[in-house]
Amino acid sequence: MKSKHLYKVGFAQTKPILGKIEINSNSIIDIIKSHNYDLLVFPELATCGYDFKTKNEIKKSSISIDSIFFKTVKKICIKKKSGIVIGFAEKSNSTIYNSSILINENGKMYLYRKSHLFYNEKKIFEKGNTGFIIGKVNKLKIGQMICFDWFFPEAARTIALNGAHIIAHPANLVMPYCQNSMKTRTLENCIYAITSNRIGSEGDYTFTGKSQITDNRGNIMKSGYRKKECVMFVDIDIKNAENKFLNTKNNIMNDRRNDLYEL
Amino acid sequence: MKSKHLYKVGFAQTKPILGKIEINSNSIIDIIKSHNYDLLVFPELATCGYDFKTKNEIKKSSISIDSIFFKTVKKICIKKKSGIVIGFAEKSNSTIYNSSILINENGKMYLYRKSHLFYNEKKIFEKGNTGFIIGKVNKLKIGQMICFDWFFPEAARTIALNGAHIIAHPANLVMPYCQNSMKTRTLENCIYAITSNRIGSEGDYTFTGKSQITDNRGNIMKSGYRKKECVMFVDIDIKNAENKFLNTKNNIMNDRRNDLYEL
Repeated sequence: MKSKHLYKVGFAQTKPILGKIEINSNSIIDIIKSHNYDLLVFPELATCGYDFKTKNEIKKSSISIDSIFFKTVKKICIKKKSGIVIGFAEKSNSTIYNSSILINENGKMYLYRKSHLFYNEKKIFEKGNTGFIIGKVNKLKIGQMICFDWFFPEAARTIALNGAHIIAHPANLVMPYCQNSMKTRTLENCIYAITSNRIGSEGDYTFTGKSQITDNRGNIMKSGYRKKECVMFVDIDIKNAENKFLNTKNNIMNDRRNDLYEL
Repeated sequence: MKSKHLYKVGFAQTKPILGKIEINSNSIIDIIKSHNYDLLVFPELATCGYDFKTKNEIKKSSISIDSIFFKTVKKICIKKKSGIVIGFAEKSNSTIYNSSILINENGKMYLYRKSHLFYNEKKIFEKGNTGFIIGKVNKLKIGQMICFDWFFPEAARTIALNGAHIIAHPANLVMPYCQNSMKTRTLENCIYAITSNRIGSEGDYTFTGKSQITDNRGNIMKSGYRKKECVMFVDIDIKNAENKFLNTKNNIMNDRRNDLYEL
């Protein structure tokens, strides 16, 4: 019987085509079918691409969580007993969010809407209202944050305080900072993270690849290519993320001084 | 007349001798007299060394903020029109704190007591109760944190939210993480930082040197030697730390989602 504390987790570093939602969706489905894993994380807006200029433009490339695409993904998750995280443009009534969804091995869906919108995203998306919810695949507890959310330490901190073992982090990174900073985000929270970044260019944006799995002490376990699509996995032990002792005397969560912080 | 937004700031990377408070104090006074600067930061426990085993042992090496040593430093600060930050073991009635003090160009003192005690420090020090107070040298606003405080993002965040341009960060670092993580601490808060670390060994501890001045975008402006004492300075512009816009649309303080954080 499979050990309950070891999980095979990974990223799919892809190159979505702007506005080609069917092509991108089929490519996602091909990837999720052709590997074995407990959790696989796709980039931000993996279904539709990034550089939409108007709300109207992105509306045509946005889907609801009840869409056929997610019904298909759900069936595969149940069949494979695996979890998937995918970034997508979410249509909810007339509102569009920059969202990601975790679908677990039972088909349960955990929706996250990006809290911190970057640059022109403010023009086309509504800012997220879900908060940093925690989902589960088997016993693996998963928080989600999307791309620029990494910049705000409160996001990863909230996810860790809410009990996650790992942060699923779909991204479309264009700045050079995130990969290094994820060492600090994981160390300070004693948590794993999968940053699944895309590659390619759209308009003025060049996406930086180098998707990364970072362990609970800030070590890079796996790093994707700079310019090539790739799917990579590691094994993680959730016990490492549950033990918050940095040494025999410092439990980094118990040592917090909420009485002194002014946040 | 001197520009009001440019400041010469630096670190004195020293090697305190355990328990030899007079020798250490004289060496500090020699250094503060022999350079010109707006702000100079010394390491944690620069007056007394680190590896005390008991409260009784450190009591003999602790001093009050009314001590002759600080009166002398204050006079020099006033005479030079300069600010100094020094880490020391503070005796306050019968309590000992791991403290640092900022003394400004008018002789005003801003006392900070370490909030997050590391490892055996929990045995000998009382945990700090001052919070992350902000001091001023001319128009330069300065927050203090001591060594392991860096690990907790709430510390630097509180300092930045309280309006500081720079974090004065006396340290006795023994882990390998801080210097890299200060790139993230400064970037995420758009703030400067001076990590003044000591060198040398005491008991099981080897201190890692490589004191560091980091700018408001996470760039290392100056890095000290690994094993040699040194005093280094840079010029900083406080306007860079006042402008919290990462680009024309993202003000990193205004973009915070306090409605979603659970801290």
